[in-house]
Amino acid sequence: MTAAHTDERRPGTGRRDAEVTKADIVKAARHLLARHAHGDITLKAVADRAGVSPPLVLKYFGNKDALFSRVMNFEADVDSFLDAPLHDLGRHMVRHVLTGQAERGSDPILRIVFAPLHGEQGDILRTNFRAQVCERLAERLPGDDAALRAELAVSLLLGLGVMYGIARGPHVRAADIETVVDRYAPAVDAQLAAPRTEDAS
Amino acid sequence: MTAAHTDERRPGTGRRDAEVTKADIVKAARHLLARHAHGDITLKAVADRAGVSPPLVLKYFGNKDALFSRVMNFEADVDSFLDAPLHDLGRHMVRHVLTGQAERGSDPILRIVFAPLHGEQGDILRTNFRAQVCERLAERLPGDDAALRAELAVSLLLGLGVMYGIARGPHVRAADIETVVDRYAPAVDAQLAAPRTEDAS
Repeated sequence: MTAAHTDERRPGTGRRDAEVTKADIVKAARHLLARHAHGDITLKAVADRAGVSPPLVLKYFGNKDALFSRVMNFEADVDSFLDAPLHDLGRHMVRHVLTGQAERGSDPILRIVFAPLHGEQGDILRTNFRAQVCERLAERLPGDDAALRAELAVSLLLGLGVMYGIARGPHVRAADIETVVDRYAPAVDAQLAAPRTEDAS
Repeated sequence: MTAAHTDERRPGTGRRDAEVTKADIVKAARHLLARHAHGDITLKAVADRAGVSPPLVLKYFGNKDALFSRVMNFEADVDSFLDAPLHDLGRHMVRHVLTGQAERGSDPILRIVFAPLHGEQGDILRTNFRAQVCERLAERLPGDDAALRAELAVSLLLGLGVMYGIARGPHVRAADIETVVDRYAPAVDAQLAAPRTEDAS
């Protein structure tokens, strides 16, 4: 490890040990995977963002695919995404997506949008997304068809993230976050609540 | 032009002229751009899908960027997407996205999801998407904040397409299309209808 990879010079932070460095690399890869197609992300870009050298990334993770496989799950992010009582969960999730976009340029659940459509990596990401995001939400929902309603609720949130972060809709971006929460969360809540039996016509 | 690029051997179709071939190339590029990151699409892939040779693509369009710039608009698709009276437009658009996904593997408006986040091509696609999809929808909406509500309605549809085509949510994909229309369209209609003034609490 070179001097560039230690924090010994920074007072108060102590020695930067392997676990901290690994976490920084994972964080950098997550950041890039939420914003770019996999094929466009280089090992060097991950290393640069993490503030380490490419060989150090290889030392800890073996290769880019192995690193991405480790990164391709949502366990570390979903707790805060779902951290609200059911009656406030729609507003919380909408606010989470908007705040993530406004403050950090993306929200972790949006990594699924950049999932490759072909190949093993996309399949891993999709499998994890279903189990760790959609099914975890479904477990909390009362009433029939909870699995379908959870997918529809998550659809709403993905779409908002795409409009904000990819299409960059100027009106959504200019609006006050709480205004968008007020307008959009009722649609999420409608999926979360136990459905009433009624004529759709 | 080689024999492979004429339809003279196919009875009843007549000679395949330049305009038809160009249209096939544009269609092939649209198909690929709705499913893959730009950087992953080769000129050869476009040519193969159009059933022509890569040099023929170059002859008609100059280069890949010039072809993609021509393809990066939604004019040809938005008419059918918005082709319903306002009272049925939510159901129509939800059905359009689901039918496009189920029958053709995507919906044209989903091309925006694959827009590059950096560079001129992404900016062209975003500008066109706003003008040709969001603003055209906004023009039809009564009431205040039509531009914001149009973006939120389009968000809902983009999210459904992402869940179906990229995350591949098994419950959305297994459900009857009209069941999903019944459950999802009310959220779209809520954005399309003139908002009532009410306390959001």
